Formats: sequence, structure tokens, C-alpha cells
Amino acid sequence: MLGVCYYPEHWPKERWKEDAQRMRALGLSYVRVGEFAWALLEPEPGRYAWDWLDEALETLAQEGLKVVLGTPTATPPKWLVDRHPEILPVDREGRRRRFGGRRHYCFSSPVYREETARIVRLLAERYASHPAVVGFQTDNEYGCHDTVRCYCPRCREAFQAWLEARYQEVEALNRAWGTAFWSQRYRSFREVDLPHLTVAEPNPSHLLDYYRFASDQVRAYNRLQVDLLRAHAPGKFITHNFMGFFTDLDPFALAEDLDFASWDSYPLGFTELMPLPEEERRLYARTGHPDVAAFHHDLYRAVGRGRFWVMEQQPGPVNWAPHNPSPAPGMVRLWTWEALAHGAEVVSYFRFRQVPFAQEQMHAGLHLPDGTPDRGAEEARRVAEELARLALPPLEPAPVALVYDPEAAWVYEIQPQGAGWRYLELVYAFYSGLRRLGLDVDVRPPGAPLEGYALVVVPSLPILRPEALEAFQKARGLVLFGPRTGSKTEHFQIPPDLPPGPLQALLPLRVVRVESLPPSLEEVAEGPLGRFALGVWREWVEGRAEPLLRFADGWGALFREGRRFYLAAWPSPDLLAALLPWLAREAGLKPLPLPGGLRLRRRGRWTFAFNYGPEEAEAPAPREARFLLGARRLPPYEVALWEEA
Amino acid sequence: MLGVCYYPEHWPKERWKEDAQRMRALGLSYVRVGEFAWALLEPEPGRYAWDWLDEALETLAQEGLKVVLGTPTATPPKWLVDRHPEILPVDREGRRRRFGGRRHYCFSSPVYREETARIVRLLAERYASHPAVVGFQTDNEYGCHDTVRCYCPRCREAFQAWLEARYQEVEALNRAWGTAFWSQRYRSFREVDLPHLTVAEPNPSHLLDYYRFASDQVRAYNRLQVDLLRAHAPGKFITHNFMGFFTDLDPFALAEDLDFASWDSYPLGFTELMPLPEEERRLYARTGHPDVAAFHHDLYRAVGRGRFWVMEQQPGPVNWAPHNPSPAPGMVRLWTWEALAHGAEVVSYFRFRQVPFAQEQMHAGLHLPDGTPDRGAEEARRVAEELARLALPPLEPAPVALVYDPEAAWVYEIQPQGAGWRYLELVYAFYSGLRRLGLDVDVRPPGAPLEGYALVVVPSLPILRPEALEAFQKARGLVLFGPRTGSKTEHFQIPPDLPPGPLQALLPLRVVRVESLPPSLEEVAEGPLGRFALGVWREWVEGRAEPLLRFADGWGALFREGRRFYLAAWPSPDLLAALLPWLAREAGLKPLPLPGGLRLRRRGRWTFAFNYGPEEAEAPAPREARFLLGARRLPPYEVALWEEA
Amino acid sequence: MLGVCYYPEHWPKERWKEDAQRMRALGLSYVRVGEFAWALLEPEPGRYAWDWLDEALETLAQEGLKVVLGTPTATPPKWLVDRHPEILPVDREGRRRRFGGRRHYCFSSPVYREETARIVRLLAERYASHPAVVGFQTDNEYGCHDTVRCYCPRCREAFQAWLEARYQEVEALNRAWGTAFWSQRYRSFREVDLPHLTVAEPNPSHLLDYYRFASDQVRAYNRLQVDLLRAHAPGKFITHNFMGFFTDLDPFALAEDLDFASWDSYPLGFTELMPLPEEERRLYARTGHPDVAAFHHDLYRAVGRGRFWVMEQQPGPVNWAPHNPSPAPGMVRLWTWEALAHGAEVVSYFRFRQVPFAQEQMHAGLHLPDGTPDRGAEEARRVAEELARLALPPLEPAPVALVYDPEAAWVYEIQPQGAGWRYLELVYAFYSGLRRLGLDVDVRPPGAPLEGYALVVVPSLPILRPEALEAFQKARGLVLFGPRTGSKTEHFQIPPDLPPGPLQALLPLRVVRVESLPPSLEEVAEGPLGRFALGVWREWVEGRAEPLLRFADGWGALFREGRRFYLAAWPSPDLLAALLPWLAREAGLKPLPLPGGLRLRRRGRWTFAFNYGPEEAEAPAPREARFLLGARRLPPYEVALWEEA
Repeated sequence: MLGVCYYPEHWPKERWKEDAQRMRALGLSYVRVGEFAWALLEPEPGRYAWDWLDEALETLAQEGLKVVLGTPTATPPKWLVDRHPEILPVDREGRRRRFGGRRHYCFSSPVYREETARIVRLLAERYASHPAVVGFQTDNEYGCHDTVRCYCPRCREAFQAWLEARYQEVEALNRAWGTAFWSQRYRSFREVDLPHLTVAEPNPSHLLDYYRFASDQVRAYNRLQVDLLRAHAPGKFITHNFMGFFTDLDPFALAEDLDFASWDSYPLGFTELMPLPEEERRLYARTGHPDVAAFHHDLYRAVGRGRFWVMEQQPGPVNWAPHNPSPAPGMVRLWTWEALAHGAEVVSYFRFRQVPFAQEQMHAGLHLPDGTPDRGAEEARRVAEELARLALPPLEPAPVALVYDPEAAWVYEIQPQGAGWRYLELVYAFYSGLRRLGLDVDVRPPGAPLEGYALVVVPSLPILRPEALEAFQKARGLVLFGPRTGSKTEHFQIPPDLPPGPLQALLPLRVVRVESLPPSLEEVAEGPLGRFALGVWREWVEGRAEPLLRFADGWGALFREGRRFYLAAWPSPDLLAALLPWLAREAGLKPLPLPGGLRLRRRGRWTFAFNYGPEEAEAPAPREARFLLGARRLPPYEVALWEEA
Repeated sequence: MLGVCYYPEHWPKERWKEDAQRMRALGLSYVRVGEFAWALLEPEPGRYAWDWLDEALETLAQEGLKVVLGTPTATPPKWLVDRHPEILPVDREGRRRRFGGRRHYCFSSPVYREETARIVRLLAERYASHPAVVGFQTDNEYGCHDTVRCYCPRCREAFQAWLEARYQEVEALNRAWGTAFWSQRYRSFREVDLPHLTVAEPNPSHLLDYYRFASDQVRAYNRLQVDLLRAHAPGKFITHNFMGFFTDLDPFALAEDLDFASWDSYPLGFTELMPLPEEERRLYARTGHPDVAAFHHDLYRAVGRGRFWVMEQQPGPVNWAPHNPSPAPGMVRLWTWEALAHGAEVVSYFRFRQVPFAQEQMHAGLHLPDGTPDRGAEEARRVAEELARLALPPLEPAPVALVYDPEAAWVYEIQPQGAGWRYLELVYAFYSGLRRLGLDVDVRPPGAPLEGYALVVVPSLPILRPEALEAFQKARGLVLFGPRTGSKTEHFQIPPDLPPGPLQALLPLRVVRVESLPPSLEEVAEGPLGRFALGVWREWVEGRAEPLLRFADGWGALFREGRRFYLAAWPSPDLLAALLPWLAREAGLKPLPLPGGLRLRRRGRWTFAFNYGPEEAEAPAPREARFLLGARRLPPYEVALWEEA
Repeated sequence: MLGVCYYPEHWPKERWKEDAQRMRALGLSYVRVGEFAWALLEPEPGRYAWDWLDEALETLAQEGLKVVLGTPTATPPKWLVDRHPEILPVDREGRRRRFGGRRHYCFSSPVYREETARIVRLLAERYASHPAVVGFQTDNEYGCHDTVRCYCPRCREAFQAWLEARYQEVEALNRAWGTAFWSQRYRSFREVDLPHLTVAEPNPSHLLDYYRFASDQVRAYNRLQVDLLRAHAPGKFITHNFMGFFTDLDPFALAEDLDFASWDSYPLGFTELMPLPEEERRLYARTGHPDVAAFHHDLYRAVGRGRFWVMEQQPGPVNWAPHNPSPAPGMVRLWTWEALAHGAEVVSYFRFRQVPFAQEQMHAGLHLPDGTPDRGAEEARRVAEELARLALPPLEPAPVALVYDPEAAWVYEIQPQGAGWRYLELVYAFYSGLRRLGLDVDVRPPGAPLEGYALVVVPSLPILRPEALEAFQKARGLVLFGPRTGSKTEHFQIPPDLPPGPLQALLPLRVVRVESLPPSLEEVAEGPLGRFALGVWREWVEGRAEPLLRFADGWGALFREGRRFYLAAWPSPDLLAALLPWLAREAGLKPLPLPGGLRLRRRGRWTFAFNYGPEEAEAPAPREARFLLGARRLPPYEVALWEEA
């Protein structure tokens, strides 16, 4: 199904009816409304103005549209901030930030939690029985603008309480953090500061606990909203719109309190911000890198325990990236079909009409500010038409699992040990390598069952908890562990038996040295798979098994022990291009190396093909395949869909 | 005429006489004095020490030198700052800045305005009838060191009052800024903060109004000084020395209160800071880029309503750029003649003698610190001699007008929408393109009459006010409008009828999409003028007229409607090199593409040629031309002047 | 002798005995202990816990190990910081920094000086008569993490007092700083601020005095510790461990209060942070640039008046550089031997065992966290064995002196005048150029006697005091002065008779112009030595003597007057490669250009050779030389030692 984000408060009432009719005409079913409207719903403290929203919802309902109502807490009004300036967050530099943008609040603020509860309860009560309102979105993009981590006095107090709950005794904290180092010993939890503005770098265990705390605070804040919505508006779904390439927050934990996950998909902006070779940057500037949207679909499908929406879908050029090119013609349709192919229940465009004022005035919508349809509208309409005549089969589990852990991102952000080590880059390299083989991938958090997968890829999992270890043990397929897996304890220490720590129960290896490499240095590894120049990271590993790849000095670079593999280096693209198809075949899969920008996704017996590239491509469909969309020859930026006989 | 900047307070009295004699011997006529001397004129609060200045002026007067007296307000003394620490400015980061450099005051500070009024009135009264004092310079380089915009509580109050005066009702502000977006609604002007330290970016209308306010505050502060000088020292001229490549301040507005404009010309430092291709950077490191000084002469001649001085002319290597090479031999003379060719009434060197202490000790003067003449002195002397035997004809209006708007710089600083979009770079590209054709250019602010020009070039004018539109309508020559012209309303909104907004009255076009391009992307445009790869910016424009250039996808890149042209892209150098001569010929002009570093400027029937290049060049003089300076063959860094028969 | 850094407080007591036995087995003699242990020695204010340290020392003593005891002042405990938050330093941005790293104190804080005196006295008293304790290390790496310069109110008061002591009368300060410039005049010392957060750059004389003050404060703080240690623990040596490539502190002055100097040698990290051509960066990423360790050995031998230790020697990959590669096999041994060859009395590895927790957990030790030996242990053991059978002859003075001045670094940090001018880079270029010729070098502070040297190289000495001038005058060898020598007075002014100021007494030259060059510009100089393209810096020098090199415009680039030379430009590598051997030969030395990574060092008749390169090299030993270590053909990363017949 398709949807759209709509802001009736930005437009004269006279336009609403026509807008709603136009939505229906385009084939849209859902409308997200209200998530920044606090100052318009409560223009003075305690004086409410629900009438306009009532009327807007009525107008939408009359056209048969279903409404997702956003709680308006991402933008507390000026009067609220002036009454309670302590709700403003304090940044890492110690500066109290100010009103005038959005997300200007601290998740720990008791007074903001009270104010949140008040407005959310009122909203829930008012629209609990509204027939058009089918669900709620809590707040908006938690963490955007670097807001997960606040450094205010309220956060310090809450962090101290969090630590006390975690460690009970301060000596347990002293042991866990290793405060014998540099005289960092604490005599009580009250002595513990927030980890910023230190003279030398802070203790990594201190940082990691603070990052966990900050993520937990967001979850607790969201839970407050969820509990009120469930209590006062029972029967409506609750979701939240997560972001792309964002790791400050653990989405798996937060989504436990939601009915499903949503995310906001801006492939071009994300691609602008990715580290990419210049050639790929040029090639995909108008399409997004071919695995960016897919990776997040697979991630948030996992976060949503199988269910997710794209709550905001890029409909044209945006305003927030360093450069904002226009999507290639066809891409809005392609992105929409790709989301559906990966299991999205709804794809909702952001936004119905480009707003001519304020911060986002240069962000395209489905329509131009004067109301005429922009290109995105036509592409959306076409998808709606196509969708109306197709009954998509349900998604089945993929043959390959990729284990992804937000905590790993925190660990490597805290101690990368080498400037080139970036967790998301490593994860993406593995994901993209698998997708170039035409393989469907399920993202799994550590500890999730892995029995059903023919191949499990663990790019890197520094903190390996018992439940994750157990899942790896029970996995029946092949499992590839990347570098630094098992290299840290829960408390950010080196395991007593050296890395890979608990993984030694599965793979009898011992990492006796690691190094990070400057860009000028590479280590050559060689073996039956080929010869590869590897940079960024290398390990020296002791183990019984004959390595599949060896460095020039004789030490192993890739180890196998039965169904389990350990990679003792940062993989280069050519290593992945050789290793992954070989592994896939060992796992009994049929990897299908795809040309350039072509990608595949299956739903049951249906296979989608997407051409991100500027050249025509041939869909690898069986001779007898029946095409439901497009044809065997895919022009650039086109979609094909076929059913296997 | 020539002049010099002199600081008697830096030198023993015994040297003054000799210095003054030396000035006369060099052929200098004017001396600027006193603009940083507050602590020496008022060493203790209320205790004045005028005697040394009296004596210094007397010494200069005895040699027939005319004096421009600077008000000393750019450098309030330490005792004043200690008594009133609230005059210190607060920067964007919220930090109160400190004493120890210069410009350490806030333009809004009531107490600093009082103190300013006190010292300026005393100075005016004391020297009102001094025969050698011919005029005043207010303060020094308003805005230097990023000081136009202050974020102190006094500025907040003043900004609120400014907004109230502008909008009368807060609802008008809410509409103008679009505060329905992100719950930014204000209930009173008292609620409005300064736009900094927000969590997400501030509202662009808020920023633009703040930039306007800040520029207005400087003008009001200057006006305070001007009123006192006029009241207490009638009959003396009043000027201010503006800076190069500086847009925080609207010089046209401020100069309405002055008798004429001045500016400070440092071609090498400006060139160091410009974005330039590496080859041009190397080529012009010792001369300055050939259009840098000329552009500012033409700009400040407009600012001064036809009258301007170069108040500070670089005389050798300076101290403040990242690298400070020595000017090529001859350049001090060339720069001086070029300023005169563009209409400068006086060119005044900075400074008479290199000061051996404090911040600027590495800034060359006409003399070395030990008093011996440096190269600049000899080149200045030569100009003085040459000038003595030539009676320059008056400047005539140029055939080409370039419309320049400081407000456009603010708009694009606030929302560039693409990292490559820099207003000054666009303006300079057009200006330089015209100058390479040997065309003289007048800079015009938006709204100034344009009837007399054969060709009008508008690099980009986002906010197009009625008076500007009227001037374009009345223009009788060709008018070329650059991209994004008419793209914003007065309040920083997209026009209701889409860009180019009001320009649609003159050019029936409608911009339906824009994009900014990363460096790796270019769009090819083609037409009778040639084939061009264009980067940075592209627009999709609907219009009736057949485009002169088309993008590969068929949309127009350059439109013509009668005498008016619209360019829907950021121009590349090769596009300008093809378009501008063609346009000039269409306008009935005779463009004369000049080799490399050669440039021309006319005063009546006299034509000046300047060779910025390292190779000999040939002056494009008519066969029968009479050479008044130099000859047809110009060695590097040489000047020629001929009279047409 | 060899030693090691050991932290008993990081390990269970049960391990201590085995650790001490292992140290002895490796052949180590010294153990540094205790320098970060305050919170463990005084876990509550006034409650002391000496027992564990007593026991640890006893355990070490039982194995015959000698102990260097660190005062624990680099890490004040949390309770101390909470009681006296004013001891926390304030950074240049005006932010009070926080507890949680190390070095979180201000050297000027009276209360911290009291607390320091208390703990140091107690430590000294307790271990004054301990037989195993042979000496003390004060604090740890003064100045690390940018802590020499603090901007707190206590520092302001102390700075004012320091200025009053220096200038007596405020008018003397006004003259010295040239406060007539920009109205910077002070009426009393109480008016003087710390030089930060100014609107324009601060006065350079102000900055220089502040940098001197800050360095003096560290010395005074250290002196406080030294006095107490000498008083309460007489007969023990006192040292401090200085850092590499660090100039905020004058080590010569501080070390006057020590018995000898120590330094911490991390060749790979230092090389990562150096500006180097990409090829050299790659070549030496696993060895360190061949002159990095040697330069500091020679520097700190001078600082220690002939005596120095390497207190921390890199034993494997470290954790703090942007990239942290593994040293090439053999390098730990090579670095150790090189230190001994340059006169180190002890080389002490950092640390005995890699600590598995807190900030430095990724810093290798001689052993892995689980206790097994890492490679460094084996290489250290080998050196210990070799050392046991060799009686090193004493070091003799080198034939070449390099004059090095921390104050010069401050001058150029304050006013580089060109972005490419970096003092340490210039010093290193000369040092490295000499070492590539196989020449031994003594580093000398300005003013030290130079009579014994055949060649004296002064890379640049802007402030040339009478004692330095006298030393140059008395030098009997050749003396080469680099650019900008003599260019500033003691008070950071241009000398009245122009640069090179007082040097004119020895070299009749006068610098009449200088320039800094952008990377794109080079000036060609030519003469009998060759033809050189020179960047960064050029001077125009008047003088009688015929220049040995001339710029293309005829001005001299290199001057000779008898035994003295003046270089009027920043030297390029090829100029140094031509000039230095020629100079050395003129000085009667026998320069021996060495291939790539080969370096030599002599102790009496013994010559060491070190191969930093990846190719085998041939030791330039006389045919009849007797090899004590290695052989004539040096594999990569190998050491050779021979005795001349």
C-alpha cells in the first residue's frame, strides 16, 4: 500500500478537500499527520485548539484515507521551553542548545516527560475512537541532529541511577571499568560524571555504559508514550520512524515496545554521505548506491520482527545533503517497488506538497508548492495502479543471515584503534557483496536464532554474549566471523583468554596481535581463492587449522574449522568478490554474480529485478518465466517482476 | 592623488618631521591618521592627551599634507572594557570574546554607543577648524574578524525591537517566517531568540532577518558617528574604509550616510583566499587575480555613488594570508594606476613604515622599520611623478552593468542547497568573463536605473523587489538573468507562482525543479553556441520560447525572450567564454577577447592597459594611438595608456 | 641496562612474584612503578594504603630489581577534584575540563600545589630508605594532552605576577609589547588578560610571554616536587619522562632541576604524526622514520647534560596514533640498541604486560594480557644477553652541533607568516640531512659552548641572545645559520637594525624583505652547488659577500663570510643533500652518504649500524673491522657493531 505525509497546518483549509481527493486519485491509502504540530494544538499553555485537526482528519476520512497520527513531541513550543529551559539539551561541548530548530529536548528531563505525558494522553484520548485514525507514530526520528546523547545535569543524575541499577555496588563498577588505571577509582555512584570534556580520552567502559544508558533513555521515553497510547487509545497500532545509517540508538530494543518498525528512506542523501570510491559516487548519485535502501529494508524488517513501513520515501531532490541532485527518472517508482519487494507493508512519500517556507522549503514533494504534480506523483500513481492488479505473495526467510549489532558500532566508535575502521562500512561491504550475488539476506541481531540459514555472515561482533554464542553454535549452515569478533567483554575489556574470547569454544583460535594499517600499507594474503592486498586491519592468529589464506609472513588470514570461518583482516572488495561466492556455493546456495547495478529480491516464487545502472541489463529469469512487471531486458532505472513456472 | 596611512603614535616625535618631509618628497598628498589611537588620546577615563595628535597634525600640515582623521572606535581601551564588559561581543558559539585584538565591541551596546558618541564628539570639536584636516574616516573596516553578527543579550533585545518595527504584529512575523513549520510559532516578539546554537538548523527567514538587522545595526552605529561629525565638524568629508570579498554588511545602505566610499585593496591576500584553479593560483600569486582589484573598484565606485578612494593599498608582502608572497616588481605601480583608471580619487598606501612590533609587524610598508625606503616607495614615487604630468579625463558610464546584491549573498549563505553554490564566485565569474572581453563594467545595486546600458548581467538575484523589476523592465539593452533569480520572496519563501516569481512578468518561464550537483556530476548542454559540461546547479524550466541551449534530456538551459535571457544553470568558464562575447555583440558592443592577464579600462578617450601576466603582451591600441604611458608592447606587470585619435 | 614499566595495582597480588621472576629472567634491571596510583595510595582523603605498594616493592626487590618510583600527581583522584574543582584546567576555548582522563590539573593552582606537596612528601618519606628504590620520576609526561597552557583565573593572577616580576613597571611592558598598536595599552599589570578568545589575533609579545610563563609554571611545579624529594629522600636520583616532538615546554630549563633526563620513545606513532612524503611514510610505517628516535636521543642527552634514559620504549603496536601498525620484526631490538648507541643509560619498555582494561588496553606490552610473552619480550631478552657480553665504551662529543631552541618553536607557532613554516620540520630536515651523511650530531641549546665542533648548524634562531651570539663567535668550526635567524628581539619585535639583528656583528647582512610561498610557487636558486627549486620561504638579503647561490632575480640565497654561512630560504631536500656534504667537507669532516634507511652511531672506536630499510644494506666498516654484533651485510631491521682496528 502507498501513503503520504501531509501537514494540513501548513495550508489554508480551503485546500484540504482538494488535497484529499488528489491523494485518493493517486491511489494513496495512508496519510501521516501531526507530528510537529504541538504549538498549533496548544497555542498557549493549557489552551487547546483541536478543531483544525478534527476538521483535517474529517476531510481525509471522507476520502477513505487512513490516518497515522504523530505525537508532536519532537517540537516543544517556545512557551514550554521558556517556562522550563532545563528541557533544552546540553551538547558534548557543554553548551546548552536553544529553541529554533527541532528535537530541542533532553530525554532524561523529568519535566519534559511530564509535559510529554500530558500532550500524548490528550491526543490519545481525543482520537481514540476516530475511525480514520488507524495508528500512531511516536515523536519523529529519535536521535536526529545528534540528540541521543545529552550532557545536562539531569542526564548525569539519571546516568548515576542507571549505573547503580546495573552494578549495585560501586566496586563492581570499579572492576568493570578498570578504574585502577589512571586513578579513576570511584567511591560512590554519585562521583561519576558524564564522559565528556575530559583532558585525555575518557575510559572506554565509561563511554560504552553511557552510550547504552543514552539509548536506554530514548527507549524509556518512547515507552512512556507507548504506554499512554495503548492505555488511552487501545486498538491502534504504534510505530516510530527510524533513520538510515544511524547507530546511536538500539532500534531492536526500542522496537520491542512498538507494533512494527518504520524508517525514512532517502537514498540520494545517504549515498552522498557514504564513503565510496569516486566512480561509484558518480555512477549512483542519481539513484543511490544499489544496496542502501535494501540494507535498511532488511534491517528494519528485522527490527520490526518481520513488519515494517517506509514512513518517508524520497520523492525528488531533497534539501539536507551537501549536494542534492534530482533522482533519475523512474527511481521513485523503483525505490517504491524495491521496498515492497523487501516486505514493506506501506510506502509513504514525504511529503504531499513541497512547503514554500521555513527550513525544508527546498525538499521536493509529490507536488510543487503551487499544487501542480511533480514527477514523483506520476511515478507513485503508476505504482499504485500496478499494485492494484498484483497480489504479492508473502515474504519467506532468506537463505543468508547477516548479524548486525548497534553495540558493535558503539565499541568501534569508542576505540576504532585505526582511523579506517568503521563498523557500518564493514557491515555494508559484506551486505553489498552478498547482494551482488543475487542472494536475499535477513538481518539478525545477535542472539536471534540462526538455524534456518544456509550461510551466516558476522561482519564483526566484538561483544559476544552467551545467547549469541549459543545461536552460532546451533546454526546449521556455514558461519563466517569477521575480524575483532569476540575481542571485548561485556565491560569493554580484552577477554582473559584473549580474543576471540568465548568464540574459542567454537573456533580454536587465539589472536595474539592486531594492527591497524595506514592507507599506504597493505598486507598481501594468498591461497586457493586468490591473492589479495588487504588494508585497514590485520590480526596474528594462532590455531591448529590450516589457513585458507596466508599472509606473506606465513600467518593465516582466513581460517576454517568445520562449518565455521574466521577472517583475520579487513576484507578488500576483491577478497569479498572471491570469498562470498565460494562460501555461498560451499553452503549449497547458487550465487549469481550480477552485472553493475542490477539487484534481485524474491517474494515466494516471484522475483523482482531492479536496474540501478545507466545501462540496459538482462534479468536473469528462467526461460519460461512469466513477467508480471517489465520484461527480460531492463532499461536503466527499471523494475521487472516475474513468476517462476 | 596619492596618500598614505601613518601612525605617529608608533614612533618617536623626533621622527615625525622627517617622515612628513619624506611623504612630500614621494609626491603624496593625503595622510590618514588616528584610527586606532583611543587609548593614547584618553589614557585614563576622562583624562585626554590631545597634545601629541595636535603636534603630529601640525607637523604634517607644515609639509602641506592633508589629513584624514580616523575615529578611534575600532579599539576601545582596556579600561573601558573593564568598566563595561558588556560591550564585548558574543560569538556564534555563545562565547563572550575578550580584549587583546581589535573590534572587541558589540554594535548594539547602548553603553558603547554612549562612549562612542563622547569620543567622536570630542574629536570632531577639537579638529573641526583644523586647516589640514579635510575629512574623517569612521571607525575601521566594519565587520572585520566576523564582527557584524553578535549574539549578546543586548543584540537579542535590539533584534526583538527591530522585528516589532518591521512586522508590527507577531502574527505577521509568524506568517512571514512560516512558523507553522516545526511548531516554531511565537506569541510575542519577546519570545524570539537570536538564531544560533539551535539543535537543527534555524529558520531561514529568521536568519535572513537577523542578517539584515545586524547589517542595519552597523549602519545605525555608523550613522551615530556621522551625525556627530557633521554637527561638530561641518564641512569635512566623511568616509569609511570597506573591505574586499566581504558581504556581511550592505555597503550601499551604509554609504548613503557617507560622502564617498573607500576600500582597502590587498590583491595578493584576496587571491590566496579565493577558490581558483591551481594553475591560476600559481600564475597570479604575485600579482593578484587580474579582476580582483578592478571588481572592487567598480563595486565601491557604485557604493560611493561615483566617488571612491582606495584607503589602504598593499605596498609589499602582507602578514595575514595563509601565505604572503612578495608582489612582482611593478605591481604596486600597476595597482595604483589601475585604481585611478577605475576612478579612484585617491590611492593611499598602507602604511608609511613597517611597524616593528605587535600584530602587524610582518606587514610591509613603503619603508622598512629602520626607515629606509622599501620597493613600494619607489613605485609610488614613480606614479606620483607620472600623475603630475597627466590630467585624467573624467570617467564615463560603462556599456555593461553588473547587478550585485549583498542580500543575495545572505540568502545563499543561509540555504546554498548545494555545497558548490557561492554567490561571490558566481558574480566574479561573470565579472571576470566580461573583463576578459575588454569591456568596462559598472556595478549596480538592484533597483538602480539601467536604461543607459547596452548589456545588463544579473548573476543571480533571488529576492526581486518591485523597484528592481521596474529597472529591468525599463532597461533598453539586453538583460541576462542567472539561475535562481526571483526564487525567493522578501521573506525567504518560494514565490506562490514558483520561481522566477515576479520575473515572470518579463520572462514567461516557470522553474519546476532544481538540483545541486556533486563535483563528480555534470550535465551537458548544447546549442548553436557550443557544447558545455555544466556542474554545481541545474534547473528544469517550462517556457514557450525555443531554448538557445538544451540539456541532453531536452529541457532548456538558456532561454531568450526578446531582449531578455535566462540561464538555467551554473555557468562553466567555457560557457561564459562563448556566451558573453555573443551577447555583447548582440548588444551592439565590440568585445575584444584579451590574452591571459591583459586588462583594459577607459577614461573618456584614454585607454589604460594592464599586464598581469608573466609574458609580454600587445596593447590593442589603434594604429594611430598616442601613448601617454608605456608602449604598445607591454612587458609583464606594466601599464600602458594611450589616447585615441 | 634495560628496564620496564610495571603496574602492580592492575594485577592480582598472586601474579607479582612470577612477574618479578620473569623480569629477571628477561635480563631487566629496573622497574618503574607507581606514577598513576594516587587513588590507590590514598583511597579516601587522608586515609592511606601503602601496604600494597610496600609489598610490591618487596617482591621486586627480592628478585634484585631496582625501582624508579613515580610521584602520582598526573592523576589526582576524583575525591580531590570534587573537593577542589578549581584545580581542573580551563582550555583555550574557555571550557573548564573534567575528571575522567589524566593530567586534569592546572600547574598554577595553589591548592593543587599544596596537595601535591602533601602526597609527594609522604611518598618520599616512606620510601627514602627503601633499598630497592634508586630514584624518582616526577609526575608523568608534563604537558601531554595540551596541558602546559591553562586559561583559568589562577593562571591569570599568576601570569600578572610573573609579568610584574619580569617588567617591574607596566610602562616597560607597554614598550616591550608595543601596546601603542591598536590601543592595547595597559595601566597596570592587573589589567592584563590571558591571550585567548580575542576578536582579532592577540599581540605576539603577549603570547610569547604567556608561553614562557606557562613553561615556567611547569618548571616551578616540578621544582616543588624535586625540592621535597631531595629533602625527604636524599640520595635518590630524580628524573622526568619528556615526550617526543613536543615544544610547549622548555625541557632544558626544567631539567636543570633533575639529575638526568628521560624520554618516552614511540617511533611508529611519532612517524604517523609527522609531515612526510607519502613514499617515506609507507617505507617507514613499521620502523619509524630513521632519524626520529635518534633525534630525540641526541636532544634529551643534551637536556640531561649528557645523561638520559628511555623511560618508555615502544614494545609493539600502540593505541594512540591514527593508525597503529605492528613494528617490523627486529625493530624493538634495533630501537633498543640505537638508544644505547646514542648514550641511553637505561632503556625501559612500556609496559611489562598489556593491560586488558581502560584507555590503553590496545597498547602492546612485552607480554600479552594473558601473561604469555609477546614478540617484544623476546627481542628485549636478546638485547639483554648481547649487552651482558659487551662493555660499551663511553660516548664522545660529536663533530657536529645542531642548535635547537624551544622558544623558536613558540615564535613560529605565534607568527608563522606562512602556513608551510614549521620549526620542528626545519630542524628535523637539517638533522636528518646530517645523519644521512653518517655524521654524529650533538644537540645544543642556544648559548651552550660550541668550540669543539667542526660544524655547527643553526636551523633557525629568531631570538638571538648575547650568550648565544658569544657562543657562535667563539665557535672554531663552520657555522651555518638558517632563515629568520636573528629576526626577532627578546620581546618579539623586529630588531632596530633589521634582521639578522645582532648576528650582523658576525655576518654583515641585512634582510630587507621576506616572503612566504604558497605550495604552488617555488624560487629557483643556482650556483656551484647546483640548481634548486625552493619553496615555503625566501628572503632578500643585502650584503657585501658574493653569494654561493643566487635566485633568478640576482639576489643571493646562500652567503658566506669566512667560517659563517647564512641561508636565505627554506631548504629543499635536494639543496640539503648538496649543501651539507659540501659543508662537512669544508669543515674537514668525512661525510659518508648512506643508502636509504642505513644509519650509523659511534661510541669511541665502536661503530653501530642500523638498517631501517626493507633491503639488505652493507655496513661501511673498514675492511679490518671486528664485528661485535651482526655482520657487514645487514638484513632489514638489523644491527651491526664493529670496532675499528
